[in-house]
Amino acid sequence: MIKGARFSGIASGIKAAGLDLGLAFFDRAVPHTALYTRNKVKAAHILYNQRKAANRVRALLVNSGCANACTGEEGIGDLAAIASELAGRLNIRADEVLFASTGVIGKRLPVETIVAGLPGLVGALSQDGLEVFARAMMTTDTYQKIVEERMPGAADCTIAGVAKGAGMINPLLATMLAFVFTDYPLEPARMGRLLPVLGRESFERISVDGDTSTNDTVMLFSTGSAPAQAGAGAFRQTLARVMKALALMIVRDGEGATKVIHLTVKGALRKKVAEAIARRIAGSPLVKTAFFGCDPNWGRVIAAAGDANVPFDPDKVEIAIQGEVLARGGVEIPFSEEKLKELMTANREIELVVDLHDGNACYDMHTTDLTFDYIKINASYRS
Amino acid sequence: MIKGARFSGIASGIKAAGLDLGLAFFDRAVPHTALYTRNKVKAAHILYNQRKAANRVRALLVNSGCANACTGEEGIGDLAAIASELAGRLNIRADEVLFASTGVIGKRLPVETIVAGLPGLVGALSQDGLEVFARAMMTTDTYQKIVEERMPGAADCTIAGVAKGAGMINPLLATMLAFVFTDYPLEPARMGRLLPVLGRESFERISVDGDTSTNDTVMLFSTGSAPAQAGAGAFRQTLARVMKALALMIVRDGEGATKVIHLTVKGALRKKVAEAIARRIAGSPLVKTAFFGCDPNWGRVIAAAGDANVPFDPDKVEIAIQGEVLARGGVEIPFSEEKLKELMTANREIELVVDLHDGNACYDMHTTDLTFDYIKINASYRS
Repeated sequence: MIKGARFSGIASGIKAAGLDLGLAFFDRAVPHTALYTRNKVKAAHILYNQRKAANRVRALLVNSGCANACTGEEGIGDLAAIASELAGRLNIRADEVLFASTGVIGKRLPVETIVAGLPGLVGALSQDGLEVFARAMMTTDTYQKIVEERMPGAADCTIAGVAKGAGMINPLLATMLAFVFTDYPLEPARMGRLLPVLGRESFERISVDGDTSTNDTVMLFSTGSAPAQAGAGAFRQTLARVMKALALMIVRDGEGATKVIHLTVKGALRKKVAEAIARRIAGSPLVKTAFFGCDPNWGRVIAAAGDANVPFDPDKVEIAIQGEVLARGGVEIPFSEEKLKELMTANREIELVVDLHDGNACYDMHTTDLTFDYIKINASYRS
Repeated sequence: MIKGARFSGIASGIKAAGLDLGLAFFDRAVPHTALYTRNKVKAAHILYNQRKAANRVRALLVNSGCANACTGEEGIGDLAAIASELAGRLNIRADEVLFASTGVIGKRLPVETIVAGLPGLVGALSQDGLEVFARAMMTTDTYQKIVEERMPGAADCTIAGVAKGAGMINPLLATMLAFVFTDYPLEPARMGRLLPVLGRESFERISVDGDTSTNDTVMLFSTGSAPAQAGAGAFRQTLARVMKALALMIVRDGEGATKVIHLTVKGALRKKVAEAIARRIAGSPLVKTAFFGCDPNWGRVIAAAGDANVPFDPDKVEIAIQGEVLARGGVEIPFSEEKLKELMTANREIELVVDLHDGNACYDMHTTDLTFDYIKINASYRS
């Protein structure tokens, strides 16, 4: 429970079935900060929030079933119309409403359907509504993603985060939508510094298919309704934990995923080298299908590393899966394929370590395998 | 038939079944030029050819079933041993032998098996052997890839190319192995200029899965055994056609592909912008699965373009599939989803045009859809 915030979610009819409209409402205007997609094509909600919303807001309206991306000025106008209606119902200003959308690109929002749903949505607001709110933004997600932590040493402070993920999950700002709420009092300037830094350690470290969404949005809200008992360090640590946990939930629910690959590239000369290699390995369809097949195919891993276009010495590379070393000095060492296959089959979460033996920098990423179900989900997503 | 060249292919036992060893033999030492993978991890045959082979060569030995990559100095030593044996049989110098390998990474070549196969391979050399040679280098390819053209105006000159592709096909030097032979007399310096230029127009314009192989090799050989009747322009045009045809054969036989996507990005301010956007679209799993599903999902196309990290105006973009415009000015225009679905279902080769309406530069690429069979092939490739 976040003091000073209420949540709700309803099935408004944007989607044929299921919850599709969620509302977060704050007792007073609260500061927020956001990270938006780096895709050049940005959804209407991003353009709207950046152009029209105030710094302190009272409400966040989230919908699934329609991305409201590539809808031009009309798409932004649709949000303005909805903001005006919602503001009237909540007795707030229109510029105190933020939006976030997820779903199919290129379709306009069904404004009348959404407006017709607003009375029910507002009526359902509750301090315990975070779960329905989280469910309202799911698309191909198979479960809602909620993390809630009480801050240590400050019994009255809470951080709660919700996210949706599944597909179009990319290596740079890898979530589609994630919202973190806290009643811990936060200065706007500090929020603005914290979110990008912690985002780089969490949502930017995951990858499902390497595609960057037009809608990626991460937001942090502070109601400030709890007393600030705990120190800044404890808050930061808790927030980092919540964000990392949400990011991992997104990977674990990656479209069609049967495996989560926890990849560490270490022994790099510089962090940038480790990151480039990690991103290339995490994005390789051949590596990802090998993990789906429980095939300890380290050759595809080193080939992907070599394709990262950064300097390293292939003849020093060591590769291990679940702690079993498969290659050292860039060449295969004797290992039991059978044992590895068993290890990879038995575990849903698999450690993959690539040691460049070149320095002390490292980078970790979390990705999934590439499976029949990913194809199935995405070959038929719109129909 | 290439005058001055003979070819053969046998099942030596590197693979459990099928042809796996091919030989090209030239009547006299011929000039050659090669393009090798840009992957930092290079197969032993590339390192060997670059370090040990002479400029003019007599023989090219190609094997499938083992990439001889990530095998260290031992892998290079294996090739030296085979070169020595083969040179003895052919009565040539060891440094007149070139190699190329394809197959699983990280395994040593079975040198004894290969050496045992050499007498049969040499004995089978024939002027008509190009087809068995091409088949000997197939891995997951479903058919051999051969293009043979007589040069117009020069009845006695021929260009013949063979290639293998299928998987680990990437946007930059996209083939695994391709060899082009001609009896047209070519100066080595001219060969060295022509191959990279024509490579950029052919093998570098295709993409199957975006993974760059450790073994990518394109070679051009000129026996010079035909009289040089035709002009340099005619030769260049024919060579360009042969290379483009081979590249398209590789895409058409992409692992698991059911569709070939002929993508053109036009109206760009600069060619670099068009190329970056084309490569990003051609590499997007979401775009590729949409084509597999015959889903005219232009939103994924524009989202991929926006993810290319180059400047363009999303509000000017026009997208057409098979000549039917789906979006203009960055937003959807009315079209019949049913008609598009039918068009995409009925055609194996599909035109996708993205017009940025920003300038006059363009770039075209050829890629495949992403299918269940791609996963199937690659989840079980080694077993």
